[in-house]
Amino acid sequence: MFINVPEVKLPRIVIIGCGFGGLELAKSLRHCEAQIVMIDKNNYHTFQPLLYQVATAGLEPDSIIYPIRKIFKGQANFHFRWGELQSVIPEKSLITTSIGELRYDHLIIATGSVTNFFGNKDFEAGSMPMKNVTDALNLRSLILQNFEMALLSYDKDELDALMTIMVVGGGPTGVELAGALCELKKHVLPTDYPELDFAKMRIILVENGKEVLATMHPDNRIRACKYLEEMGCEVWLNTGVAKYDGLKAETRDGKQLLTRNLIWSAGVSGQPPAGLKPELINRRGRVLTDEYCRVRGLENIYAIGDVASMESEKYPNGHPQVAPVAIQQAELWVKNYRAMLMGRPLTPFEYFDKGSMATIGRNKAVVELKYFTFGGMPGWLAWMGLHLMMLVGFRNKVIVFINWLWNYINYERNMRLIIRVFKRT
Amino acid sequence: MFINVPEVKLPRIVIIGCGFGGLELAKSLRHCEAQIVMIDKNNYHTFQPLLYQVATAGLEPDSIIYPIRKIFKGQANFHFRWGELQSVIPEKSLITTSIGELRYDHLIIATGSVTNFFGNKDFEAGSMPMKNVTDALNLRSLILQNFEMALLSYDKDELDALMTIMVVGGGPTGVELAGALCELKKHVLPTDYPELDFAKMRIILVENGKEVLATMHPDNRIRACKYLEEMGCEVWLNTGVAKYDGLKAETRDGKQLLTRNLIWSAGVSGQPPAGLKPELINRRGRVLTDEYCRVRGLENIYAIGDVASMESEKYPNGHPQVAPVAIQQAELWVKNYRAMLMGRPLTPFEYFDKGSMATIGRNKAVVELKYFTFGGMPGWLAWMGLHLMMLVGFRNKVIVFINWLWNYINYERNMRLIIRVFKRT
Repeated sequence: MFINVPEVKLPRIVIIGCGFGGLELAKSLRHCEAQIVMIDKNNYHTFQPLLYQVATAGLEPDSIIYPIRKIFKGQANFHFRWGELQSVIPEKSLITTSIGELRYDHLIIATGSVTNFFGNKDFEAGSMPMKNVTDALNLRSLILQNFEMALLSYDKDELDALMTIMVVGGGPTGVELAGALCELKKHVLPTDYPELDFAKMRIILVENGKEVLATMHPDNRIRACKYLEEMGCEVWLNTGVAKYDGLKAETRDGKQLLTRNLIWSAGVSGQPPAGLKPELINRRGRVLTDEYCRVRGLENIYAIGDVASMESEKYPNGHPQVAPVAIQQAELWVKNYRAMLMGRPLTPFEYFDKGSMATIGRNKAVVELKYFTFGGMPGWLAWMGLHLMMLVGFRNKVIVFINWLWNYINYERNMRLIIRVFKRT
Repeated sequence: MFINVPEVKLPRIVIIGCGFGGLELAKSLRHCEAQIVMIDKNNYHTFQPLLYQVATAGLEPDSIIYPIRKIFKGQANFHFRWGELQSVIPEKSLITTSIGELRYDHLIIATGSVTNFFGNKDFEAGSMPMKNVTDALNLRSLILQNFEMALLSYDKDELDALMTIMVVGGGPTGVELAGALCELKKHVLPTDYPELDFAKMRIILVENGKEVLATMHPDNRIRACKYLEEMGCEVWLNTGVAKYDGLKAETRDGKQLLTRNLIWSAGVSGQPPAGLKPELINRRGRVLTDEYCRVRGLENIYAIGDVASMESEKYPNGHPQVAPVAIQQAELWVKNYRAMLMGRPLTPFEYFDKGSMATIGRNKAVVELKYFTFGGMPGWLAWMGLHLMMLVGFRNKVIVFINWLWNYINYERNMRLIIRVFKRT
């Protein structure tokens, strides 16, 4: 059955996914003479950079996500359909989804990325990913549940395991999460659980490489590590988790640790649809495209953002999987679409890296722009300002700002709520 | 196994439930020479009067609930344990719970009430209750999911069923919910779903009695009904739902209606623990107490709030199941506990009814105080002021106030988010 979408005499541009890329694309096509159909498995856009604050009880989930229909309110050429992409049939210009089939004239795959457990079933079963709002809420529930259980425990080993949190992966997500957990440990949990001995609580960040934040400037890598250690985080470098059975974790260099909280932020992979030839997908699940975001060898299928890999001399493994790449690719796509209609030459993609930043804790962040890096309170203020600016919707900006102000003044994290109990399935 | 609680040489007062009653009780025992242990199946207190706004996408769930540990921060004689009461063994002064056993010197049952389906399995399986945050979030998801499905539907009957919402029960919850749904219909959903014909959307409130808000003043019953009809709600009086199979609802007087959204707010029953003699529990599941909140015939077990029924000449079926009763009983319990310690006579409970109120929509509410009733905008402002005042925590007050202001100015409901898909089990 076909998805119920108005039949009009205009080219139909189908966008899969309303992440940073899909969102920008559909908005930029506002005045285009085309029918835009967006499919997403959620009815909201997620501001992923703040997920870790939802997981650590600092923000409401509802304040960092935004209803897709509200974003596109009044955009007459836009149609949202809530469903999940299943496969692409390029030869028929057709997709199949959980809600039916759909014909397209142009298809843009912007499905982003998913947590990559590198095929390890134990990690997938026993650890907590942190890639979407549900993950973040589950993690929030689990950590709080484990503290409630710790209070009840008569067993020393179990108590240690419940009070130990291991974060795997020293990229921005892992670093920001570890920092936020240290703040919970310092300012919030001891007043909640005065009966527990917080000297026993351990937060460990495990990173494969020799430094955290590998993609950042060396100054910032050192700075971030120093901040984390100051805040009480143990940073284990040059190692990874080799085994985890839900209780005992073992690192590659033989260290053992009892933990009921293993957070997996060690990597992501693209989420390509079925139906594309295997040679079009690299080993990280990313779809290979040319410099116009076109899936290699296909005429009217494109991929942008995390799911795409535009491999070049400068970026042999594709561009970094960050929001600015997705947004810039979306902008370029629209520019090129117009050029195509006018018969003008297309512009190849060139990534303009504006810099990057990560926050570690109160007055502690690392920022790098093109020519210089900085940290501390200025970095932290810059981080907050930029993230407020980027949040979708004025109301969300206000609510998040109030929460931040509140948390800063009161050393608080108000959302320590177990709304849905997390149970392993 | 016993629940891990410090053993001290003080009387142990165990409170089950952190609703309005339990919360007030534990707070008032702040300076008492006693060990207070509170057990609740949630780690938060719920401000139930605003649940319907969570269900209708007007408020974040996190803003109307509050972490119990935070409420009692610094109260040294207070211990919270996250668990569910299973049974009471009066002869041993012992309770059993999901997390172990616990001995008490005084036990206060303040477990509140649950949705009452009056034993009808079809209603329980097919309808949506509205008694806690999870219910409210499920309802929010379901209504939004059904609108997303409506867009895809090729079947006229199915489309009608998806766009029809039936609210069963014309008490405050039903009336407030029906009003909020009418506002969604008028101001929010049409811009979200411009492809749907909202003349087809129906909201129906079904009430057994001959008027809505039966416990209120006759003026207000008429006023509320008029408001609802002005807002586009169909009010079916003197009837109830006889059958519902998940699609087709049939009323007692033979009317049929196709709906995929049946909300059950037709009644609550107490949630008494196992272990009390059946003759101590009335047919509405409420525990019979004397005028000192003591469970009849038992020395050191008490019940307060919705779960208790202190039947008297003036209240032959017990007091109304509202917050003020629970709070006043909690206050009295503490007063009597002190009197008991001092060997002074106990004071019997007398309910001081300060009045009641319900909001129906924008500038539309009904309020009654001891000597007069009013409605309209003054009522609506009074309703908002009182509810803001009663919300626990300054941060929650601020966030809820901003949301209300925002929604009022923009005719908005921002939280139209399907965070967890609702699936029938």
